[in-house]
Amino acid sequence: MKLYDMQSAPNPRRVRIFLAEKELQVEKVEINLVEGENLSEDFLNISPRGLLPTMEFDDGTILDESVAICRYIEALYPQPNLLGTDGKSRALIERWQRHMEFDGLIPLAEYFRNSFPAFAERAIPGLPAGYKAIPALAERGRQRYQLFLEGLNERLANSEYIAGEQFSIADITVLCTVDFARVVKVRIPQEHQHSQRWYQQVSARPSAKA
Amino acid sequence: MKLYDMQSAPNPRRVRIFLAEKELQVEKVEINLVEGENLSEDFLNISPRGLLPTMEFDDGTILDESVAICRYIEALYPQPNLLGTDGKSRALIERWQRHMEFDGLIPLAEYFRNSFPAFAERAIPGLPAGYKAIPALAERGRQRYQLFLEGLNERLANSEYIAGEQFSIADITVLCTVDFARVVKVRIPQEHQHSQRWYQQVSARPSAKA
Repeated sequence: MKLYDMQSAPNPRRVRIFLAEKELQVEKVEINLVEGENLSEDFLNISPRGLLPTMEFDDGTILDESVAICRYIEALYPQPNLLGTDGKSRALIERWQRHMEFDGLIPLAEYFRNSFPAFAERAIPGLPAGYKAIPALAERGRQRYQLFLEGLNERLANSEYIAGEQFSIADITVLCTVDFARVVKVRIPQEHQHSQRWYQQVSARPSAKA
Repeated sequence: MKLYDMQSAPNPRRVRIFLAEKELQVEKVEINLVEGENLSEDFLNISPRGLLPTMEFDDGTILDESVAICRYIEALYPQPNLLGTDGKSRALIERWQRHMEFDGLIPLAEYFRNSFPAFAERAIPGLPAGYKAIPALAERGRQRYQLFLEGLNERLANSEYIAGEQFSIADITVLCTVDFARVVKVRIPQEHQHSQRWYQQVSARPSAKA
């Protein structure tokens, strides 16, 4: 397996943590999104939309979408389980994973991509390129992300992990989100004791170094 | 099973078509999003974020997220298969399903929610409410949706269905998207012959009436 990666970007890290939980080592190729390497001819020959992460599997399958990559990894290497063990747990993990994306990761990404100067003319990742930043969307993303943090603390008051008793892909999504939020200088507030408890717990896993 | 539904909204229809493919009949409760019924106390007692579709399963599980609902239905009623039959097909269907959402359904929803007068103060579905429409986001959504249609025609030049040879959830997502686009008066262009061929094919399935 070969992962086209960017060390500082949140979506590639979701895959890196997923792999680390499975104790899998893969070849990694660093592609610098800020410098636009993802839109180079060489990379577009591999990943036609210029998206990171992109994974080349040993059977030749190429996937350019984080959760799809995780789903294939889980099928090939089922243990430890990160996507659910039966129909109900798979559905609940999917529910949480998607809400965490739509409520947390995407608003944060909107905030970042619409305010970071290097992306002023590339506010949407990959091709087609050329979308200008929308300042009002950055501001809305900032507001939504603050509310996401409030909801996260409420959820974690009642649940060990995001989706319930099992550490899952939903925790990986949120860990990558809250760590990435450092670039816009937003952290889990100290008074969010349940989120702080969860953060210490998941950050102490060896996979969090990925 | 009980589906909290809105006949004219695209996300509930994804679940209705999914159910119809399985030939399942469920109780349906119509909730009018335009009139804000999803934010009524009664509905929030069932679905705390006020999101549609929400499904109450016979085991008491409540899910308020379209794809998570479909995943649980597929686990309970595996035939006909709509999410993939092995690790690789599940990953490819997920890849296409998610790209169709991010590139098609979401830009269209951004266009609609940020330009339709009834949602001027509710540009994000459900709670927390009160986000004002962003006109520049409506315009960007409109542009992105046009490019999505171009890409769709290219994809369907080379593939019978969206994700390959199998009719899948990715086709359901796109069918609900292109039909919903009528509300903003955008249709698949006549000259997009591959998309037209696909559209006729999937619209002729009995499930498309759902």
